[in-house]
Amino acid sequence: MRRVALKIEYDGTDFYGFQLQPDVRTVQGVLEEAVEAVTQSARRVQGGSRTDSGAHAAGQVAHFDTTTDLPCGQLVRAVNYYLPRDVAVLDAADVHEEFHSCFDARSKVYRYRVLSSPVPHPLRRKRVLRTHHELDPELLQHCADMAAGARDFASFGSEVEQYDTTERTLTRSEWQRRGDELHYVVEGDGFLYKMVRTLVGTMLEVARGKYDIERFEDIFDAGDRREAGPTAPAHGLVLVSLHYDEPLFVEPPA
Amino acid sequence: MRRVALKIEYDGTDFYGFQLQPDVRTVQGVLEEAVEAVTQSARRVQGGSRTDSGAHAAGQVAHFDTTTDLPCGQLVRAVNYYLPRDVAVLDAADVHEEFHSCFDARSKVYRYRVLSSPVPHPLRRKRVLRTHHELDPELLQHCADMAAGARDFASFGSEVEQYDTTERTLTRSEWQRRGDELHYVVEGDGFLYKMVRTLVGTMLEVARGKYDIERFEDIFDAGDRREAGPTAPAHGLVLVSLHYDEPLFVEPPA
Repeated sequence: MRRVALKIEYDGTDFYGFQLQPDVRTVQGVLEEAVEAVTQSARRVQGGSRTDSGAHAAGQVAHFDTTTDLPCGQLVRAVNYYLPRDVAVLDAADVHEEFHSCFDARSKVYRYRVLSSPVPHPLRRKRVLRTHHELDPELLQHCADMAAGARDFASFGSEVEQYDTTERTLTRSEWQRRGDELHYVVEGDGFLYKMVRTLVGTMLEVARGKYDIERFEDIFDAGDRREAGPTAPAHGLVLVSLHYDEPLFVEPPA
Repeated sequence: MRRVALKIEYDGTDFYGFQLQPDVRTVQGVLEEAVEAVTQSARRVQGGSRTDSGAHAAGQVAHFDTTTDLPCGQLVRAVNYYLPRDVAVLDAADVHEEFHSCFDARSKVYRYRVLSSPVPHPLRRKRVLRTHHELDPELLQHCADMAAGARDFASFGSEVEQYDTTERTLTRSEWQRRGDELHYVVEGDGFLYKMVRTLVGTMLEVARGKYDIERFEDIFDAGDRREAGPTAPAHGLVLVSLHYDEPLFVEPPA
């Protein structure tokens, strides 16, 4: 059977996350409905990353099996025709029969946007965490450096009993200044449930002076979620991209 | 009486524009309610620019009179407390009794965002006009150059019979590349109703090859709205700033 991979963008504001759940609106749910409408056959659309309720994606990857012989370009247009305005397929590609958007992913990249401001900014309120605290960017980067490499993130995950191991490797962990915002960009071979948001929430406690930097290291050692800071809200988080051994899609010219 | 100027940001998506109208939600309406809640006195909040239904603002200016002696910083926090999440006061300043946010404005700056893409981009759908046409950026700038300086914009305005003159002076009229988007940035001493959106809509017809560039000049000469292209949708437009003889607010460090 033909297997097709999709690259997907969505505004997570009005979704209960990616993963299918009964009685609530999910990205997977609307994708499966659109694929069924186009191919006239109900199929599982398997996602590469289970983004949380309210979190966004600029480059989610998913795959499904189909008997349709529609070329990928037409498939993109047809599926988009049936999708609601807060989800779109950006690209589609034929992949080999064993390809798996989640298990085959070598790494995933997330971005978390933070704005330190005494006043709200309505135009960004659904994309950026606004904090009234002043943040020390050097302390943020110091924390990000501590998180880099192979580490045990047990203190930064939720429902960690579902995992065989809580060790993950971050190949990139950096804070960037983007205009008046600070962005945490993180790439890793995998992430525990709510791990990026809990890392950010804890780093913000350090950067505003509530925790000292030694405590950040201690939290890793504790291996206990109760030691870490709050989970930062989902609306600041965007899944940027997933990476595989070979690029799935033709990349746009730089 | 004390007169206070406000700098305001709003997401125009769920408003019927700035100006107060019966039975619909307007920015002016929610501002007046919030000012009344804080000052315990119903006051007109006069805006510097009447933005259209669905258009946004990052730096609208408004003013009102009040007997409150709350310092400006506290006034900002108090008014924001009563405002809905899609409007916020960014700053407040005491101004002289005769100051008028609209009549005293020397210039206004607008930005219109366009994305040429075969697929929708849900994360930007409420801020950026997406067109599936390919656009020639040189033709866009050629049009923008023609619109610069003192010109009669009768062909690009709606309901122009309300104005004494349809001549306006654009001191800046340029297209900028911003990532994968094209932005029209325009500064002028004033704008006719729907003028920016009609300029953009017409420039896009040229840039996608539907109108030739000579026609753009002919439209100016015609002095007739029916000669111009479509009015581009409001959601791509943001009022960036208003400028006065003296800066009203303390500018943040660059």
